[in-house]
Amino acid sequence: MGIDPGSRNMGWAIVDRAPDGTMRLRGSGVIKTRPKTPQPQTLLIITHALDDLIARYCPDEISIEDLFFSNNARSAMIVGQARGMILLAGAQHGLNVVSYTPQQLKIAACGKGRADKQEVQAGIQQRLGLPSAITNEHTADAAAAALRHFDQLAADAG
Amino acid sequence: MGIDPGSRNMGWAIVDRAPDGTMRLRGSGVIKTRPKTPQPQTLLIITHALDDLIARYCPDEISIEDLFFSNNARSAMIVGQARGMILLAGAQHGLNVVSYTPQQLKIAACGKGRADKQEVQAGIQQRLGLPSAITNEHTADAAAAALRHFDQLAADAG
Repeated sequence: MGIDPGSRNMGWAIVDRAPDGTMRLRGSGVIKTRPKTPQPQTLLIITHALDDLIARYCPDEISIEDLFFSNNARSAMIVGQARGMILLAGAQHGLNVVSYTPQQLKIAACGKGRADKQEVQAGIQQRLGLPSAITNEHTADAAAAALRHFDQLAADAG
Repeated sequence: MGIDPGSRNMGWAIVDRAPDGTMRLRGSGVIKTRPKTPQPQTLLIITHALDDLIARYCPDEISIEDLFFSNNARSAMIVGQARGMILLAGAQHGLNVVSYTPQQLKIAACGKGRADKQEVQAGIQQRLGLPSAITNEHTADAAAAALRHFDQLAADAG
């Protein structure tokens, strides 16, 4: 299960790998919350949505994009709150949570660390054998996070 | 229930106000987690501890110190994760969560926004009628957060 950790738009993507190495997208979407919703309720909505997704898809592990903020600490705290819901869901459901940098996700998607959005989308479409590209950037980042972790597993397996 | 939101040392303090306005400290402490504990498990420990405290003391509201970080976004994200556990606990238990700035806490504790630690500790000791000062800074900040919210309630009541 790949996740793009955002407070207002949390992308998610469930990716399977068949024994022959073929990747398949089982489901994807965005957990959206309204800007006017108070933070505690926003986090409760995210937590419930994550619990529902984990119950529905039974993922083996969670892979998230690790965000860095150059100078906006307030944003970092808000994203940290949302990211905390993902880590908590992983701990509560006994799922390993791993994270990768945005550059690592781009390389997983299309082989280039400095790719633009179109290249990333095209790469994800190709790797997942999709009829059309995932144009929602949050969902695309979530799918790239899942793909990146499969690459890690493959590398670890030698 | 006042809380000092930290990832490694989360201070808490339960403050009651008697009908005559007297403040009383019913309990206080620090939720400590180890630096080596992975983030998901740390957040699970914090969540369980908060659930236990809420079940034990049945607070009416939660008041937390609102932290701002000038330039350390990484720290802000980590604290945001811990802060998210507090907001989530509030939402799950139907408790209002309010936050105040460090300066507001100092004013509540001792009447001065630029007070040093000793002044803050002495002020809290006096307001809560304690035999000795709360020397743990996390617990003291939590107590100050609770006192600040009582001041707000008093001001709102006219």
